[in-house]
Amino acid sequence: MILIKIGGGKNIRLDYIVEDVKKYLKTEPVVIVHGASELRDTIGNKMGVTTQTVTSPSGISSVYTNQEALDVFLMAYAGVANKRIVSEFIRRGVPAIGLTGVDGNLWLAKEKPNLMVQTGDKVRLIRDNLTGRVEKVNAELLLTVIKQGYVPVLTAPAITEKGVIVNTDNDWAAAMTAGALHIKRMVYLFEAKGLLKDFTKPDSLIRHIDKKQIQDYLPYAHGRMKKKMLGAQEAIRQGVSEIYFGDGTITSPVYSALGGKGTVLS
Amino acid sequence: MILIKIGGGKNIRLDYIVEDVKKYLKTEPVVIVHGASELRDTIGNKMGVTTQTVTSPSGISSVYTNQEALDVFLMAYAGVANKRIVSEFIRRGVPAIGLTGVDGNLWLAKEKPNLMVQTGDKVRLIRDNLTGRVEKVNAELLLTVIKQGYVPVLTAPAITEKGVIVNTDNDWAAAMTAGALHIKRMVYLFEAKGLLKDFTKPDSLIRHIDKKQIQDYLPYAHGRMKKKMLGAQEAIRQGVSEIYFGDGTITSPVYSALGGKGTVLS
Repeated sequence: MILIKIGGGKNIRLDYIVEDVKKYLKTEPVVIVHGASELRDTIGNKMGVTTQTVTSPSGISSVYTNQEALDVFLMAYAGVANKRIVSEFIRRGVPAIGLTGVDGNLWLAKEKPNLMVQTGDKVRLIRDNLTGRVEKVNAELLLTVIKQGYVPVLTAPAITEKGVIVNTDNDWAAAMTAGALHIKRMVYLFEAKGLLKDFTKPDSLIRHIDKKQIQDYLPYAHGRMKKKMLGAQEAIRQGVSEIYFGDGTITSPVYSALGGKGTVLS
Repeated sequence: MILIKIGGGKNIRLDYIVEDVKKYLKTEPVVIVHGASELRDTIGNKMGVTTQTVTSPSGISSVYTNQEALDVFLMAYAGVANKRIVSEFIRRGVPAIGLTGVDGNLWLAKEKPNLMVQTGDKVRLIRDNLTGRVEKVNAELLLTVIKQGYVPVLTAPAITEKGVIVNTDNDWAAAMTAGALHIKRMVYLFEAKGLLKDFTKPDSLIRHIDKKQIQDYLPYAHGRMKKKMLGAQEAIRQGVSEIYFGDGTITSPVYSALGGKGTVLS
């Protein structure tokens, strides 16, 4: 089994990706986890709900999620993006089912209501952040779905033990899902060739990262790429042995990534 | 097994309904189908996408769905409303899974791109309506979910054989779902006591309708109530033997409806 994480950038070509996954399904089952950040921003802007991105003292950027922002999150991730991807599969004759972390307690998260935010020299505390980190995955549900021949198409949000819907980091959740399913290989597709030494230079691609030395490469990751690196680090801790970062905007993106055209963490 | 259709009006009390369903689950499995019309209108208004309701020459009101309207539909039904209901169950310790008609080809619909619209004396034809009528239900998927102990929480949209997402009538889809699962009893919960002889008078409740004479009562149904009556008529054709219309705004709404406090079609 393989897990493919599809980024939520606007240039991601879902048609190319799904076409490639369809081919790959002849080899082994595939679990999809996807984002929808671009769509969330578009919907939020139209509704007058702007995404509040905050930066922690350690330099990790996160989204501050109040109830209004969580609803926009649900609209983009669970509503439009998830069903769009599911229909791309079905259009090609591949049975697929979309699930959020809420459904069947798929992604059980621990609430993290407190958020430390750095603005310039000042650090302040936000207390009502509707967010959480996935700690437990309902692998039984996923295995049932896969056994029935469906491709599971998964996305945030997650749910807490109290039944509260919380925003969650899809990259982290993907790592936990891979761990729960004993998946050994993961592919991350986004809007770049892979991890770049200099993110302004597309030809500065880092070809290989020793999976024990991911920490050393964190300084090269900027913005959302940082979360992908931390997700990859957690995936390795969860037992994943090979991670492929690749370009989700090109034709045959899955086979390109698996063929080592991007960054390979192993 | 019983099917409960929850209306999408703003005064519907999800907490009361889910509390009651939790009790009822000790008797037999429950399938939920829900609407989200009020939420769809709210989101549409905020995004500047107004719901275009049109009336056919035979007096049935429908929503005209272009791509923009379909996206708003997904946001409201698949995004916010579905996950809200699922989380209401999980909060009460009841495992539940939300699925749209798109997921796993659950509700396979026949496209109805042409829509006859009556405006005053004039009748015109709309050709790009993204809508369809559910003709086939993936009962196997639902039975798998139920067998695993989950309450399926279902909603529109549906999907066509070509893999196109289409808006669909939830009441009709509920009837087809009941038929596919050989369900004998259905409950419709909405913002009224039942079918009223005079919809301006809450005390003009029709207590009983012979299931062979639903046609005779259609003139009493106004607005969305008309669709519920047509859905009920189809449900009877599909083999359902008892249908309970009841108030979804009161405490213990399921037991009240089943106890005959609303309109009983049998």
